[in-house]
Amino acid sequence: MTIHYIDGGVCAPHGFLAAGVSAGIKNNTDKEDLALIYSSAPCNVGAVFTQNIVKAEPVKFSQQNIADAKAHNFRAIIVNSGNANACTGEQGREACVQMVQKTAECFFTKNNESITKNELLVCSTGVIGKQIPIDRITQHIPRLVSALSKQGNIFARKAIMTTDTVFKECACEIQIGGVPVKIGTMAKGSGMIHINMGTMLGFITTDCAISPELLQRALSESVKHTYNCVSVDGDSSTNDSLLMLANGKAGNPLIEHADDNYNIFLKALIEINTQMAKKIAADGEGAEHFIECYVFGAKDDETARILGKSVVSSNLVKAAIFGKDANWGRIICALGYAGVFFDQKAVSVFFESKNGKICVFEQGQPLDFDEQKAEQILSAFEIKIIVEMHDADGAGYAWGCDLTYEYVKINGDYRT
Amino acid sequence: MTIHYIDGGVCAPHGFLAAGVSAGIKNNTDKEDLALIYSSAPCNVGAVFTQNIVKAEPVKFSQQNIADAKAHNFRAIIVNSGNANACTGEQGREACVQMVQKTAECFFTKNNESITKNELLVCSTGVIGKQIPIDRITQHIPRLVSALSKQGNIFARKAIMTTDTVFKECACEIQIGGVPVKIGTMAKGSGMIHINMGTMLGFITTDCAISPELLQRALSESVKHTYNCVSVDGDSSTNDSLLMLANGKAGNPLIEHADDNYNIFLKALIEINTQMAKKIAADGEGAEHFIECYVFGAKDDETARILGKSVVSSNLVKAAIFGKDANWGRIICALGYAGVFFDQKAVSVFFESKNGKICVFEQGQPLDFDEQKAEQILSAFEIKIIVEMHDADGAGYAWGCDLTYEYVKINGDYRT
Repeated sequence: MTIHYIDGGVCAPHGFLAAGVSAGIKNNTDKEDLALIYSSAPCNVGAVFTQNIVKAEPVKFSQQNIADAKAHNFRAIIVNSGNANACTGEQGREACVQMVQKTAECFFTKNNESITKNELLVCSTGVIGKQIPIDRITQHIPRLVSALSKQGNIFARKAIMTTDTVFKECACEIQIGGVPVKIGTMAKGSGMIHINMGTMLGFITTDCAISPELLQRALSESVKHTYNCVSVDGDSSTNDSLLMLANGKAGNPLIEHADDNYNIFLKALIEINTQMAKKIAADGEGAEHFIECYVFGAKDDETARILGKSVVSSNLVKAAIFGKDANWGRIICALGYAGVFFDQKAVSVFFESKNGKICVFEQGQPLDFDEQKAEQILSAFEIKIIVEMHDADGAGYAWGCDLTYEYVKINGDYRT
Repeated sequence: MTIHYIDGGVCAPHGFLAAGVSAGIKNNTDKEDLALIYSSAPCNVGAVFTQNIVKAEPVKFSQQNIADAKAHNFRAIIVNSGNANACTGEQGREACVQMVQKTAECFFTKNNESITKNELLVCSTGVIGKQIPIDRITQHIPRLVSALSKQGNIFARKAIMTTDTVFKECACEIQIGGVPVKIGTMAKGSGMIHINMGTMLGFITTDCAISPELLQRALSESVKHTYNCVSVDGDSSTNDSLLMLANGKAGNPLIEHADDNYNIFLKALIEINTQMAKKIAADGEGAEHFIECYVFGAKDDETARILGKSVVSSNLVKAAIFGKDANWGRIICALGYAGVFFDQKAVSVFFESKNGKICVFEQGQPLDFDEQKAEQILSAFEIKIIVEMHDADGAGYAWGCDLTYEYVKINGDYRT
């Protein structure tokens, strides 16, 4: 199976358009903050949402819409940044209704297209607990709908950003039953991000013909190996959503069983979600290093993932990497409180980057390693922490970033 | 029941002496780094240790000694700071043996006292994974033993500090069966500290006559309400130990049942451990604010504690308090991922300090509060976050501190 990376992000698959405009939701800026993804044909939808008990209004609204329509017949997703529309009660819910209603109206005005509000999804990201400026949003929706284009991903990918410093986008082409099928995606990450969730905002489009059941199954499976391996700060947001639209326009034989074609699709999905998850970790708030913790020789894959997550989630490990300090003791410590049992006498730890590789702890014994070499290795942007458990065959990874002054700064005055 | 606070720390109870000297374990300083607590009579011992799978050598050594002696007949605790003696393998274990052996020898030389190495306990705190400079330590043990005095708490409380900025000490007197009984304590905290552990290093002395079983029971019970409510950075150390020695010298009727006298003792223990736990949170690495999250109206006390811990452990809440930002959305978010169910429509949130009190979220609705007043409230050192769940009668609290540039700085170059 070959995956070809292509341009175009969420607009790459057949039948998808996108747009991004500024509605003045982000304080005093003319930055894009309102995005739209549109499909010319009805889509099946797959979705993963936050597991936080406190769910933002658009999360609850979209969940309900998907349940009502049994994941069929969706046409568009409207997204705003700058305001999370979370903890906003009845007024916040009403804002979601107005956002989809206005969008549906505009489609009708523009193309005489009758899209109902039940065929739309909503996502929001930004500050929690402030009422969303719905008047400003509805005022700009006509312009947003008019702006839909095949190059709109360029604006949409910016419109969903909050403290992200770079946009995150990816697209690929695969062959299913001899037919070219495309998958495109964009996401925003940065802060309030933790593993074990359908984390942050992510959007995936595809022209693949696939049943809603298999679409959901592939999405959930891929998340386990990708988005759920990311931790920026241990805080799981109220708004985390990953939505996937499939319009079937590629004309491939419909995927409705977990057969070879399904596996090709799943592999491609894992591949592009891996790209996105790593981008999100690398662009964690204030990050100066991307950290990958790769654990192997563990009891099983799940144990390896738990151990890796514990390491990349540790504030002390993150601060040490910021300080280019090969303080492996904190890695051992984080493994130790991960909640799984292991024999510390069997553990080895390595640091690796483009500048080299060094073993600092070998089968339970500290090594008298070259500190200068270690510092040089830790001077690279991408740092790999490799942990060998010498137990069984389990392997897994987790991705994160370092803890920096800038993280504290960004989050000490996020609202002001 | 009345608790009188008194001076003297661990030396306050009858029959206890202490000492602290510099052995040069802390790099290039003449700071005290070796401490000794001694009882003239054999003690029953209570102990709570880290739940980290990876345990430092002195933790394993002391656990074994206590198990071997069935918690009877202990005479002294030797403690070093500057090196955790963790992940140091056989050589680290041998260092523990040498520390207690040398100490036992010195008692014999000094007083002709025959204390065996099985009657001693060891604790270490500092950097993980470096071999402990055992020669320097054994060289200074004779001076340490000679220095034992009734005022020795003044040096011992300093000798156990690492990145702590202030010493932590407390002592009190209560009446048990008409007899005055004293309890004294000292502790070190600062970094690598998280809830749900016998956290950090803490030492408690008492002249109370109490059976080992009841001593352990009281200690474990008190920890649940005190030390386990503290989170500085979510990292649970390899070395956390809380040790309590009871020599019976007060002459009170022996506590051997969970009767009224036991309850008086337990209450006093909770009281002084509360003082210490709050001091540890307030002196968290880099802390500029002490945070208490008090949750009431929860389903039960345990639920309230879990919710409170989730709030004080959130990096985003901690960074907001650092920035004096009344960003209550992050509090709701942290409640939401605590892992317990609740109705967000019933929740109210308040900020309180010596500068006033303000409600920012009332029964699921955001309030349009006075931001200036909120900032003034958050300008105090001690910040109370009050969460009312409007569910049932459960109440609980958790203590922590804010996340600051200084925390990142301290932990970015701790070893260098």
